[in-house]
Formats: sequence, structure tokens, C-alpha cells
Amino acid sequence: MVAEGGITLFTDGRYTEQAKTEVQSAQAVISKKGPLSAAGRSMGRKRFGNRASKSQTLGIEGQYLTVAGRRSLSDELPRHIRVREAPPLVERARMVKDADEIRAIRTAVERGAELFNHALKTIRPGVMETEVAAEMEYAARKDGAEGMAFETIIASGARSALPHGRASSTAIVSGAFVVCDFGVILHGYCSDRTRTVYVGAATAEARRVYDAVLASQQAAIDAVGPGVKVARIDQAARKTLQQNGLAQYFTHSTGHGVGLEIHEAPRVARGQQEVLRPGMVITIEPGVYLPGKWGVRIEDMVVVTEQGCEVLTPTQKEFIVI
Amino acid sequence: MVAEGGITLFTDGRYTEQAKTEVQSAQAVISKKGPLSAAGRSMGRKRFGNRASKSQTLGIEGQYLTVAGRRSLSDELPRHIRVREAPPLVERARMVKDADEIRAIRTAVERGAELFNHALKTIRPGVMETEVAAEMEYAARKDGAEGMAFETIIASGARSALPHGRASSTAIVSGAFVVCDFGVILHGYCSDRTRTVYVGAATAEARRVYDAVLASQQAAIDAVGPGVKVARIDQAARKTLQQNGLAQYFTHSTGHGVGLEIHEAPRVARGQQEVLRPGMVITIEPGVYLPGKWGVRIEDMVVVTEQGCEVLTPTQKEFIVI
Repeated sequence: MVAEGGITLFTDGRYTEQAKTEVQSAQAVISKKGPLSAAGRSMGRKRFGNRASKSQTLGIEGQYLTVAGRRSLSDELPRHIRVREAPPLVERARMVKDADEIRAIRTAVERGAELFNHALKTIRPGVMETEVAAEMEYAARKDGAEGMAFETIIASGARSALPHGRASSTAIVSGAFVVCDFGVILHGYCSDRTRTVYVGAATAEARRVYDAVLASQQAAIDAVGPGVKVARIDQAARKTLQQNGLAQYFTHSTGHGVGLEIHEAPRVARGQQEVLRPGMVITIEPGVYLPGKWGVRIEDMVVVTEQGCEVLTPTQKEFIVI
Repeated sequence: MVAEGGITLFTDGRYTEQAKTEVQSAQAVISKKGPLSAAGRSMGRKRFGNRASKSQTLGIEGQYLTVAGRRSLSDELPRHIRVREAPPLVERARMVKDADEIRAIRTAVERGAELFNHALKTIRPGVMETEVAAEMEYAARKDGAEGMAFETIIASGARSALPHGRASSTAIVSGAFVVCDFGVILHGYCSDRTRTVYVGAATAEARRVYDAVLASQQAAIDAVGPGVKVARIDQAARKTLQQNGLAQYFTHSTGHGVGLEIHEAPRVARGQQEVLRPGMVITIEPGVYLPGKWGVRIEDMVVVTEQGCEVLTPTQKEFIVI
């Protein structure tokens, strides 16, 4: 809590020692009833904002706070403070990344992209999807990643037609794609990348669909630049797929912001009115999913620049057959 | 949603295909506004419970639902349904595990326990805590675990005095303990185990404290049985540490229930009135933390039986020097 009288960190007994070591310029309050209760109680005793007004409003982040958490907080608040869901001020402020953040994201993207080499070494018929994920996650940890940015997606065979096919005990089969969607957290920032490879002798249809997704992704990347509405990026991806008769198989949005969290604003989707500004970092990830057969998705992260955009993800995207 | 007219699963467009494959005896509703909105809208059209009453109450789980989630649900609900936080009915029902669950937990515990061998092979001066965690997590994945039950704690040197010292980039040093607290999720069920080893030439004090924690843990295990209040288990652990002049360094509770989640009811802590029943599965994990110096924690999982309890965790707990 940042107040006129100083800064306070609220925690519980498990973190007494850690708070002593890590908290430098704040007072640490160790509370038995938990940090939210303690913060609520303390809030009545401090001064905030406009003191002319008798009643005050405390904004909370509804996407993060549980109903029980809100109750812990409210129960201890003095009566003149009422609790309301705040508009997404922090989320909006975080959309544009500063130079330090872009540097951190670039590092996470580059180091995260290397995990694909471990996937390539492991993917072959008969190997379980989880084994591929295990090799990638192990390499990430050895490389110093704080963790994976989300549950690694290794979707093989007909599962590659599931946009969110988390690695399962399914064994990889010939005659289909394997979608690998993965990312790391490094120094707090996330990476997000998808590559799709074919296992077995590729059919003409597999090549045609792969090329269409790649063209769709490139069209969307080409559309990225300052002043552009995000809906137009989404449209660019869809239009290319439409020209190939595949638009109805692209069942999700084109991308999303990435930063401290794996999904940040803006959403790059139909009808979204957000306008791109330099420093925004988004994914471009169109996909085509043929139910019961297989699917293809290709995803890069790009940063909006003054001139257009820069693709952060190392760009090797040729059709790979294993 | 389970209603008189049938069962409905609410999801969004990313899971259209997966719902078709995996949902057998329910209707799948794909919603653009998200599952909670769709469920709220649908709820007004179905029949539930006591239809004599005009107003109805919908209980929500406040610990799991976010404030924004509650709003999504409420906004679409018909007016005669009001939303309230439900008492912990599910949590209480889940405290006692049935035979199938105990079998699943036993498997998770046994397979999880084996990861300690990987820790023993990796721990040596100069190795980073995260490297130890990496080896353990890799082994877990290769063994088919769905994931880790919580962020692996590898706390070395003075960090071993932090009860929640998640693996960091700190290098292991001689002359202190390393606390390893880890668990896996297998077939949905969690394991939780802590072992502490000494790196370097052990001092008499290190041995004395280790023995005191082990005696404390054994005293708590000996106290477990049907009809016993959980507070008495906590007291048994504390009393033994008190006899060794170490009670003030035991700064957390003695244990917690484990099952589908890593922290379930009951809490095994001071003042807790829950009475143990056969089939409850709890951890017993006293610790002693000497600030700035080092710490020791020893943790097993036990299942309450008709006669007393059975320790599920393989029991090797001798003082290990590396």
C-alpha cells in the first residue's frame, strides 16, 4: 500500500524472513488473517487522494481478485470506503512497452524460440506428446527460465485440429501435422511462438494448407503498423485464408498482446477498435483446423515500430517434414 | 449445468472440436461471451430444486470465482435468482477420500517420492537451486506426471530458513541444509513431500535440530487417528520442539489436507476444531527455521485409518550429508 505516510507490504507468517531480506523501503506487516484483511484494516487509518470528499472509492481488479478476496478486503474496510471494479487502467497503460521491456521481451522470445530445436529432435512417430513437452521444458529450465508462459501445446494427429491441444499421452502418428505452441517466462516477461511440422510423407493438401496459413500470417504481419486498427490485422489474415477457401476453418482470433502476462491487451480480433501504437507487442497466429484430420498454426511475436513492425521471433518458417 | 432437462457444457469457440470429441452425455454450448455468461442466460430457462419458491439462490465458490466472473454470471441471470457465496460444502465433502482416491494418491505419493533421488544426484556446492528443480521436474514429466503439484521448493544456504523458498538462481553452498519440498500431479491427484539434506561437514547443532524436527514429526504422526482433533496433532508437533527449546522457530502450521488440490481441508493448525475421520489424507510437516542461518523441514503424507494412520510417503528419513 502506497500512502502519504509511507509504503506497506502485507504478508503472512510464512514470509516473515523473506520480507526482512527482500523488502527494502517499505514497512512489512505480518498478518494472521491474510494480506487483504490487513490491508483493509490499515486503509482506514491512512490518507489517500481527495481528502475533501468524505466518501472514497477503492478500485479493485475484478479479473484477478476472487469473490472471497473481495470479501476479506471489504469486511475490514471503514464504512466511508466503498469497493468497485476499476476500469482496465493498468492493462491499458501496459499495452505500450518501453525500451527496457522490449529488450526483456526480445530476450525471452529469442531464448524461447530455441526450444523448438528440442521439439524437432524429439518429434517422431510413437513418441508421446508429453515427452516432447518434457524435453522443451527441461531445456527451458536449464537455460534459466522462471517457468513456461503457459501449458505447452503439443497437438499431434487429429489433435492438431484442436486449437488448444495441450500435450497429452497421445503418441505421435505419421500422416498428420504436429502443432507446437510454447513460451517461456524470462525476467518476468513472456514469449509465445507456434510452429507446425508434418510427420510422414506430406500430401499436396498438407502443403497447400500450410502455405495458405503462412501467407495469411505474412499478410497480417504486413498490415501491422502505427495507427492501424487491430481489427484490420485480423481481417488481413482472414482475407488471405478466404482466397484459399479456408476462412471457415480459422476459428479463433488472430492474436493478442504479450508482456508480463501471456494474454494482455489488445485482442487482435474481429470488431476490436484498438489502434496500434509504437511499442505494442502482439502475436500474429492464424490457424486452419480441419476437424478429425489435422490443423496448422504459425505464430510470431511482433513489436509495432514508428515505420511498421519488427518480427521478434526468429523467422524460419519453411515447411518441415519429419 | 446439471438440470432436470439434461446436462449442458458451456465453452467457447477454441474448444468446439474438443467438446465434440470429449463430451459424451451432455449438450455442448459454444458461446462467444464466455461460459459464465452463457450459463447465466441459460439458467433462467431451466428448472432447479424447490420450484414452490419464487426466488432462488445460486451458491458460488468465492475462493475460485473472480469478481469479474461473478459479474459475467450475475449480469445474465434472471432477476429471481440471487447470487451468494456458498459454504464450503464441496471442500468438506472432499475431506474424506474413498478407496479409489486413496489408491490414486498412493500412486502419486510413491512416484513423486522417487524424484528425491534426482535431487540427491544433483545437489552439490555450486549447483543452482533451479538446476535441482529442473532435474526433478524433467524426471516427473518423463514419468508421465501431468505437472508439479506446486512450484518446487529448493531452498539452500540461508534460504533454507525461508519456509517457502522456491528454487532460485542461488548456488548451493557448503555448511547449510537444503530443503526440498516437491510434489507431482498424477491422474489428477497431488503428492507433497519434504526432505532436508546437509551439504558439507555437519555440525552438532545441525544434527540436533534435524533430530528434533524428526522427533516432532514422529510425535505428530503418532497422534493421528480417527476421532482426534487436528489441533491436537499440531500441538504434538509443537510440544516436542518445545522440549528441545525450538518451538519459537516453528512458524507455520503442522499440515493440511491433500487430494485433487495441494491444499485442501482440514488445516492441521492451532485452534482448528476439525475431527479426523478414516479416509482423510493430510501432511505432517513441522519445520525449524533459524533466521539467517538455515532451516529444516520434514514432511510426509498420511491417511487416517480405522486404527490410527498409515504413512503413505516412503519413510527413509535418516540424516543425509552430501
